[in-house]
Amino acid sequence: MRVLMESWIRFLQEDIVQALEKLDPNAPKFQRDSWVRPEGGMGQSCVFAAPTASEGQKEFILEKAGVNISIVHGTLPPPAIKQMRADHTSMPLPEDAPGGLPFFAAGISLVIHPKNPHAPTCHANYRYFEITDPASASAGAEVAPKTLAWWFGGGSDLTPSYLYPSDATHFHQTHKSACDAFSPSFYPALKKWCDEYFYIPHRSESRGIGGIFFDDLHAGPHARLPDNPRTLDSIFVFVKSLGAAFVPAYIPIVEQRAKTPYTDEQRRWQLIRRGRYVEFNLVVDRGTKFGLMTPGARVESILMSLPETARWEYMSEMGADEETEEGKLIRVLKEPKEWV
Amino acid sequence: MRVLMESWIRFLQEDIVQALEKLDPNAPKFQRDSWVRPEGGMGQSCVFAAPTASEGQKEFILEKAGVNISIVHGTLPPPAIKQMRADHTSMPLPEDAPGGLPFFAAGISLVIHPKNPHAPTCHANYRYFEITDPASASAGAEVAPKTLAWWFGGGSDLTPSYLYPSDATHFHQTHKSACDAFSPSFYPALKKWCDEYFYIPHRSESRGIGGIFFDDLHAGPHARLPDNPRTLDSIFVFVKSLGAAFVPAYIPIVEQRAKTPYTDEQRRWQLIRRGRYVEFNLVVDRGTKFGLMTPGARVESILMSLPETARWEYMSEMGADEETEEGKLIRVLKEPKEWV
Repeated sequence: MRVLMESWIRFLQEDIVQALEKLDPNAPKFQRDSWVRPEGGMGQSCVFAAPTASEGQKEFILEKAGVNISIVHGTLPPPAIKQMRADHTSMPLPEDAPGGLPFFAAGISLVIHPKNPHAPTCHANYRYFEITDPASASAGAEVAPKTLAWWFGGGSDLTPSYLYPSDATHFHQTHKSACDAFSPSFYPALKKWCDEYFYIPHRSESRGIGGIFFDDLHAGPHARLPDNPRTLDSIFVFVKSLGAAFVPAYIPIVEQRAKTPYTDEQRRWQLIRRGRYVEFNLVVDRGTKFGLMTPGARVESILMSLPETARWEYMSEMGADEETEEGKLIRVLKEPKEWV
Repeated sequence: MRVLMESWIRFLQEDIVQALEKLDPNAPKFQRDSWVRPEGGMGQSCVFAAPTASEGQKEFILEKAGVNISIVHGTLPPPAIKQMRADHTSMPLPEDAPGGLPFFAAGISLVIHPKNPHAPTCHANYRYFEITDPASASAGAEVAPKTLAWWFGGGSDLTPSYLYPSDATHFHQTHKSACDAFSPSFYPALKKWCDEYFYIPHRSESRGIGGIFFDDLHAGPHARLPDNPRTLDSIFVFVKSLGAAFVPAYIPIVEQRAKTPYTDEQRRWQLIRRGRYVEFNLVVDRGTKFGLMTPGARVESILMSLPETARWEYMSEMGADEETEEGKLIRVLKEPKEWV
């Protein structure tokens, strides 16, 4: 699975980056940036940042975008194991591992922030995790390590500044179709999980209009997915289908909305909404917090999800009036909707 | 002390706001915004936000500033007590309080973000905290509650985007003089504590060039301040002297630097530095995290500390070259200096 997963995320990264580059042929290409993790493993970041626009210069569709993959391995120290046990209660992680536990993790993670306030931000992430027996690791490289636990996690969600219900429906429908091919129970479960996860408690609002989210998908029974696929291979097929849904779910939306004219006030609202995006990622998101706490983590890759620019206003009046376009978004963020 | 503290922070708030308004007589006045906490207590926010500048319009000295006071009371729920016990190990908080603990807190908190990249951001906060006996609270309002623990905390620190060593020296010297009037051991202890507190571990750099910081100042012995004042009254006199140092420590700096011409690149660097300010406040700062976790907290006041605008660039080259003005700041943030 390690080799298969690595090869799939490499392919998906290139596929998505090419789709994004095709969106705006006049924009600079993504910067492809390979890195090596001294503690074990490597990654490749593909990043786009629009050059600071001079007066009168044509603007690009994207403002900031990153499509990263990482394939890393090493030993989880006991505090990280403790955190992992708390976050993944259904995984059979050993109680006691004073020397730490060997792990392998491979994943793709992406965040796209378009420039136009009518074009939504989008995030997706698919990852495979493995914990192996410390005893078999010390037996030497010629012995294949015994896997103690493995699981997949991931999902994709959309964060608009202005609500276009047809965009929300298209994004959800595309992911629903990918789920329905496996079981009609998957999309409702993953949609609900997404609404719960991407929630900002101190603002009492969702980060965006949702999508799908899952974790701990493995061969055992799953508390939130009663008829989950039960083999490594069938789970991998499912995850690949979800990953393949990203381009058709998102690209047509940004392609259309990037042409909509916008005002300075609409841009201001977008930057305020991006402030909330920053709050979710830095205050709430489990993955970001776990990443920043991990010694040797690549901070530039973890925080690549942050927007190029964000804004905070004290007691902003924008969004307070339910009848405005800004207020309509807030209403949906306060009370998640069914989009399909 | 409750009445004295409330009256002092009201005075200090007005004093500081007037000093800031005098800096820039052509700017709009601060917006004074009183609020009531439904669970008990009240506050007043004095906030400045520069109107979005139109083309060619004269810019104001401040971009965003908030000077807040709050005087609140209520019951700390057991999880908050647990957190408080961990943060204030020297305070004699009861082990077991299933119904929670009555508290009183009064403080002033301010953050000033000037527009000009040469003028530094500044933060200050002084607070008084009291925990009272739940038994005496239930005995009725006519019985004065028995105080189980009380302490003062606070400090002030400077966050420049461009390093002017003379500014750093002036800011530190002004606070050192206020400390030295009580004991020569105070400034070195509070300066060191400030360097330790305002540190961003995931960036391996300080938030700014420091200042002073202290907590748990009470009548008992203090681990970090061997000859601390040991009565409520003498501690209050000390805290008032530190608060009084804010205007002479900061206002002359911003007055001078706000006149320095700046380039778009220098503004860009300022926004990147503000991104780090956001990271400290949302990821690291104990006070912000505690505040956002507290039910009924006034989120707009807590997050008033965030800058109006911030910026994140992936692998930014700014600051990487030690010979540039940006690089000189980074060197000092990586290795705190003695300024006086």
